[in-house]
Amino acid sequence: MRDVRTSMNAPATAPRKRNTDEMRIYGLNACLAMFAKRPHDLRKVYLLESRLGDLKPVLAWCVQKKLGYRVVENQDLDKLTASQHHEGVCFDVRRKSPLTLANLLQMIPRAPQPALLMWLDGVGNPHNVGAVLRSAANFGAHGVIVSSETASSLSGAAYRVAEGGAEAVAIAQIAPGEDVLGPLKNFEFQIAATVVREGQSLYASKLPKRTVFVLGAEGPGLKRNLIDRADIHLTIPGTGSVESLNVAASAAVLLGEYFRQRIVESTPRPAPRR
Amino acid sequence: MRDVRTSMNAPATAPRKRNTDEMRIYGLNACLAMFAKRPHDLRKVYLLESRLGDLKPVLAWCVQKKLGYRVVENQDLDKLTASQHHEGVCFDVRRKSPLTLANLLQMIPRAPQPALLMWLDGVGNPHNVGAVLRSAANFGAHGVIVSSETASSLSGAAYRVAEGGAEAVAIAQIAPGEDVLGPLKNFEFQIAATVVREGQSLYASKLPKRTVFVLGAEGPGLKRNLIDRADIHLTIPGTGSVESLNVAASAAVLLGEYFRQRIVESTPRPAPRR
Repeated sequence: MRDVRTSMNAPATAPRKRNTDEMRIYGLNACLAMFAKRPHDLRKVYLLESRLGDLKPVLAWCVQKKLGYRVVENQDLDKLTASQHHEGVCFDVRRKSPLTLANLLQMIPRAPQPALLMWLDGVGNPHNVGAVLRSAANFGAHGVIVSSETASSLSGAAYRVAEGGAEAVAIAQIAPGEDVLGPLKNFEFQIAATVVREGQSLYASKLPKRTVFVLGAEGPGLKRNLIDRADIHLTIPGTGSVESLNVAASAAVLLGEYFRQRIVESTPRPAPRR
Repeated sequence: MRDVRTSMNAPATAPRKRNTDEMRIYGLNACLAMFAKRPHDLRKVYLLESRLGDLKPVLAWCVQKKLGYRVVENQDLDKLTASQHHEGVCFDVRRKSPLTLANLLQMIPRAPQPALLMWLDGVGNPHNVGAVLRSAANFGAHGVIVSSETASSLSGAAYRVAEGGAEAVAIAQIAPGEDVLGPLKNFEFQIAATVVREGQSLYASKLPKRTVFVLGAEGPGLKRNLIDRADIHLTIPGTGSVESLNVAASAAVLLGEYFRQRIVESTPRPAPRR
């Protein structure tokens, strides 16, 4: 690595040992969103020379806080991130401590206010997890609930694909066997399980004001006991020429439809002509 | 590779030279969809022993047509597909010859019938291309128009992610500089450019009966001259906490909204009470 400059407190020639409470994120929007939201969690910055301009405020912060930063070559970033999609920057950051479900439920609007949650039960591909976070941020979901499998996919790749969405959305992690439905029902949420067949059509459904969309793992879909205990079962309709949508595409369609229905409901309708 | 059995005409011990008019696709649904649609394009099959049951009709066809098939180990498939997501099977197949735009326009319903097309102008990531094809198939798009950059991303990975959608949807490839807007307008399509800001909200728009959604490349978005010449400009609304949706998520939301509006229009409304 070419060591162009580091601020005083960080001898950058020796490889830096990362703590387990740290992670490496990459991608320009992901890194900028992290810095905007929680600069105190920044530990170390690696960047291409061509990114010096985009990251000026970050580097000024590094100097001020005596954090190390290094200008490196493209192939160094490839190695540091194990990806070619780093967009010229990666950060070592303190991992966000995930919320508990109880924390999350305390933070969000109470009934009878509308509220929207997404629950990923076993979605495992970091690209899908990242894309869901991005869509959840875009459509204003109040939080995303993740199982421990999904939590372990909240990697640098997921942050990159989320394009800042991983910082914008509150994420609650649940333990295996934890009662999730009980607290959600106490907070007057309706559980909307998404199923490939035999649910009611999303486009023929009036979505509850307080909705939790539940999406299962990429291959097997939702677990039977979750389907059985849901309040409504939704199917994204289609031609049948493919079995279903990709899980991230499904999430976008569901969140978008909730968003659309809220707009339509809040828009006064023209009085019917007589 | 462990050569368990091959049908008679294909000595499988020597590596097979692939012609340039062939490609390698993988993923169970992708391979099954290809076989269902165009079995005569199959050239060679590689599979795990555990997939023998799923692929019985394919192997029977191989025997009948004297095509080679090989039962291999997982790490062989990793190498053959340069992926770990092969799901235990890959096929060497004859590449589908892409349609011309003129071919595509001849194949699909004429005005005043409704029709839906998606135009990917420079989308480059095979996972995004595959996910768009899957959504296009699900929501019944009559075709997808691709630039040459996007066409070169129609790889085995794109087929896998499309889960059969790459076979179900007609794909037309356009040449650099080819007049696309002219023929589309002659066939009475309205060009709906998707822009991150300043378009009309998707959810406040009545989508034209004959719509072409145009999506630009992942980073830069749509080219200025295409935006200028579009009939309508659509923005997927949101909170603004991320700049936009992922291109495949955008495609799913757009296609889904067109599908929803067609359903709503074709459903007779209850007569207003007087």
